[in-house]
Amino acid sequence: METWFFENQTGNFGIKIRVESILFHEHSDYQEIAVYDTLEFGKVLVLDKAVMFSDKNEFVYHEMLGLVPLFSHKKPERILIIGGGDGGVVRECFKNPFVKHIDLVEIDKKVIDVSKKFFPEIACKLDDERVRILAEDGIEFIKRVDSGGREEEKYDVILIDSTDPVGPAEGLFRRDFYEAAAGALKADGIFAAQTESPFFNKNLIKDIGKIIREIYEKSSLYLASIPVYPSGLWSFTAGSKKYDTKVINESYNNFNFTGLESDLKYYSREIHRTSFILPNFIKEILK
Amino acid sequence: METWFFENQTGNFGIKIRVESILFHEHSDYQEIAVYDTLEFGKVLVLDKAVMFSDKNEFVYHEMLGLVPLFSHKKPERILIIGGGDGGVVRECFKNPFVKHIDLVEIDKKVIDVSKKFFPEIACKLDDERVRILAEDGIEFIKRVDSGGREEEKYDVILIDSTDPVGPAEGLFRRDFYEAAAGALKADGIFAAQTESPFFNKNLIKDIGKIIREIYEKSSLYLASIPVYPSGLWSFTAGSKKYDTKVINESYNNFNFTGLESDLKYYSREIHRTSFILPNFIKEILK
Repeated sequence: METWFFENQTGNFGIKIRVESILFHEHSDYQEIAVYDTLEFGKVLVLDKAVMFSDKNEFVYHEMLGLVPLFSHKKPERILIIGGGDGGVVRECFKNPFVKHIDLVEIDKKVIDVSKKFFPEIACKLDDERVRILAEDGIEFIKRVDSGGREEEKYDVILIDSTDPVGPAEGLFRRDFYEAAAGALKADGIFAAQTESPFFNKNLIKDIGKIIREIYEKSSLYLASIPVYPSGLWSFTAGSKKYDTKVINESYNNFNFTGLESDLKYYSREIHRTSFILPNFIKEILK
Repeated sequence: METWFFENQTGNFGIKIRVESILFHEHSDYQEIAVYDTLEFGKVLVLDKAVMFSDKNEFVYHEMLGLVPLFSHKKPERILIIGGGDGGVVRECFKNPFVKHIDLVEIDKKVIDVSKKFFPEIACKLDDERVRILAEDGIEFIKRVDSGGREEEKYDVILIDSTDPVGPAEGLFRRDFYEAAAGALKADGIFAAQTESPFFNKNLIKDIGKIIREIYEKSSLYLASIPVYPSGLWSFTAGSKKYDTKVINESYNNFNFTGLESDLKYYSREIHRTSFILPNFIKEILK
């Protein structure tokens, strides 16, 4: 017997993954959630028919969204993650020595429950006492922090770990959200978001790049190779009024990355720097 | 009407590309050849059911296999390409200012004919008077040059632009072939080959890396992002008794790369260097 899961990644391109069994399938209030056991990638989380991650390859996305922004900040103590209910980015954030508190705002509590059950190695830090989980709308949450204006509520780093810009995550790709996020950051804060494929989503990357450049003095795009995502190449857009995210902050000059390395399968000092070196065709997008 | 082409990239993972029309389909003496017109990628060449390249993305593979080895060689005048009957690597080689002569040894003449007809922008330099096309077995050819021992027949750079290690290209991934290739190089020559996906072909990359390290004093693996190839991340293995392929040779210190840049969609001075920076999980493969 051969069972295959198909994902239409664009209208005209897709992937197929051979499935051993369907471990979970349910419609939550926000989306369709499925967990497959697969021969190629181990367990795979699928939201609204799009692969989010697999046991075998989740390290790339989670390390790169979590660690690049944090290690370019001098002392990232308070972190906000929008989305990311699986806990992968939370797990990575704790590899930074300064992190004291993480707010995780995931609209769909079901994603958290499913991850704890089927992906314990990814969700492993969700019950850490330094983590506060809020099952609510990230847009509303960030607007509240922005308009509240209380400095002690603001964040050193805000990470947008969203699904694609259709369905529940649509509003996370809009200018008013990016502006509110800037208002929820401390003056020297860093913002970073996953921003889709440079091969398939050129217009989206261009538009977001423009907005982030207008909001922040320093902005940049960085890349990582993720096999189960459309085209296999993924982009992240970062902005800050103070820090250059391309550079590891000097506060880590004596930090023992090598001690972390058995735990880091993708990220390293060298990868941090080189992930910002863009092929000419991607530089063209940002012009 | 929806028509899709499916490629099984591993036994348990594959891609699908929506097809507008089938422009060509024939069995040559060596393989099945198809040309599709597709909505996502333009025209696509498929050999034995595996996508070789598309109009839209061919630049990555061809620039990176052609330019990285050539620009790390002081003065690459005589080039040998095994496979690559489409002409993409030939086209890129001529962007190096020193190239005087290219021997292209493609076992399947039909691939050359099909490329000239359907991919004129890729095959555009195949009729250049500095190119000699030999429709014969690359392994036999290289063994002849090796055993002939005539210095003036040997090459500055040998590039292996092969299909996957099944079918006609199988012998291009074996130790005796790599040893013969070393014998067909000048003393300071550079060898480079496409060596599949670091996500899906770890053992192959490890084995070839070991052989190349044993043959050459200097060897290295470099990477490029290619959407239509398995996992989207591709590897190339290079070796030389003299040159470090990670470094652009100082003979190009005054070379006007910027003048080339409208023509270079992926490769640049910076990409040359950074394509050798490997994520930890790939460093592990090579240990």
